[in-house]
Amino acid sequence: MRQLVAVLGTGVVDASDAVVTADDLGINRGDGVFDAARVVSDAAGVRVELLEPHLARFARSHQKMGMAEPDLAAWRALIEEAVAAWDVPGEAILKLIATRGLEHEPGAPGASFLTLTAADTAPCPPLRVITLTTGRASDAFADAPWLLGGVKSLSYAVNVAMAREAKRRGVDDVLFTSSDGYCLEGPRSGLLVRFGDAFVTTPVAGTGILDSVTIGVVAEGLRSRGLAFSERLVTPAELIASDGGWLLSAGRGVAEIVALNGSPLATDAEASALLCELAGFGTA
Amino acid sequence: MRQLVAVLGTGVVDASDAVVTADDLGINRGDGVFDAARVVSDAAGVRVELLEPHLARFARSHQKMGMAEPDLAAWRALIEEAVAAWDVPGEAILKLIATRGLEHEPGAPGASFLTLTAADTAPCPPLRVITLTTGRASDAFADAPWLLGGVKSLSYAVNVAMAREAKRRGVDDVLFTSSDGYCLEGPRSGLLVRFGDAFVTTPVAGTGILDSVTIGVVAEGLRSRGLAFSERLVTPAELIASDGGWLLSAGRGVAEIVALNGSPLATDAEASALLCELAGFGTA
Repeated sequence: MRQLVAVLGTGVVDASDAVVTADDLGINRGDGVFDAARVVSDAAGVRVELLEPHLARFARSHQKMGMAEPDLAAWRALIEEAVAAWDVPGEAILKLIATRGLEHEPGAPGASFLTLTAADTAPCPPLRVITLTTGRASDAFADAPWLLGGVKSLSYAVNVAMAREAKRRGVDDVLFTSSDGYCLEGPRSGLLVRFGDAFVTTPVAGTGILDSVTIGVVAEGLRSRGLAFSERLVTPAELIASDGGWLLSAGRGVAEIVALNGSPLATDAEASALLCELAGFGTA
Repeated sequence: MRQLVAVLGTGVVDASDAVVTADDLGINRGDGVFDAARVVSDAAGVRVELLEPHLARFARSHQKMGMAEPDLAAWRALIEEAVAAWDVPGEAILKLIATRGLEHEPGAPGASFLTLTAADTAPCPPLRVITLTTGRASDAFADAPWLLGGVKSLSYAVNVAMAREAKRRGVDDVLFTSSDGYCLEGPRSGLLVRFGDAFVTTPVAGTGILDSVTIGVVAEGLRSRGLAFSERLVTPAELIASDGGWLLSAGRGVAEIVALNGSPLATDAEASALLCELAGFGTA
């Protein structure tokens, strides 16, 4: 493993050092937040892509969880220190983690640290995908803030279980579906679908999905080229009949869905190349 | 805070020592399991109540998560060491935590540790409770093992958020309800309702609720006294009109629901005393 660990208030530490205490709410209850951004290390140096939108979402996750506002200046300084110490060429992921605090010492600070980890797969892979239900309707989060819709919380056991189920069934990834039959998002990615010259993604409001930074950047690019981009719910049948579907994330980039539940999707090299470019992954 | 921490393979450590590394799936994804048992320290010594049923459930949680089987003999030895070092009289909670492993080093062991924490509240308190929906139907978990129904996972952020919502609304606890309108369980407790001489609890199958060790023991006691005990779904209206409702857990014991969503419930000192006794909390 090529990983660097840095702790807020301390700086870079040995990656094998323990950094979380037994009473931390993060390890006890998955009670904390994270965000992840792409890091590219090449001849031009090491840079974190779209750091500010990721920091902004990290702060929004804090707010939605009722956690104290993060000290973004301190985080930026820690990221700068970590990036300066990072010497692995190629793609990597920067992950920020902050927990609510300790369970039995109200007011005591919890763990706040980052990891820089070398990417272990090539970006923008083709994906065979299955749908798995979240068991919730597409509007279940509308009036239920306690369900933590849109929060990148540390409570991702179900997301990980879904990825295990995909592996068990011999496919690459999962598309969450709602109990009323709509496509939502992947366990760690957002959905983009093409119908002719129009692109659509899942609405954030009510569905509980995450506001994807990568989809936000791609949407801006599509609109600036005069292409339609909007939010609406799509069924798996519509996705299969569409002109192309992709799962987007900061680390993996723009991954084209080549099959859903065993049914092939239209693949579209030209659209994939455009989306990869808009997402900052060069031409595919 | 009066807390003791012990690490599997190491033994008792300083409670302020960090015990979880940055790459651990437990802190990154809430990907791990826990269980919690009551500890009583009195003139007769320190004892863990119902340790074996809690260890059995801990092992079932491992299994449902697809984690390697826990070494229960090693856990028993660690618990014995911790209990021998525990010198705080009164009630305490023993919590066991085991994570799946590391995120970027497949096969490497994750954190496995226990905490012993002095209880900060008196057992068996009366509770004013509100209902909050989980957004899922009462049968949502029947064919969806990836939703991790019945697993005491470390991904408890929603449970904690619900407890925060209760506090915000000025009540003591929450009763989860399904989207089709049934009572399920509390964020950290199981539900028992009395109708005349019959007691009912929420069915485990399909609902995703946890199999409560405390309710299991109480059910056995009720049946041995010739009282009816069965599983069935109850609506909030039925609960309000019932002859008594309780939230049961290993730590807090048998807590009587005195109001639900502002409506008073029938309270029943005799039944409460019996339930407390059956749960091992003496006569109330």
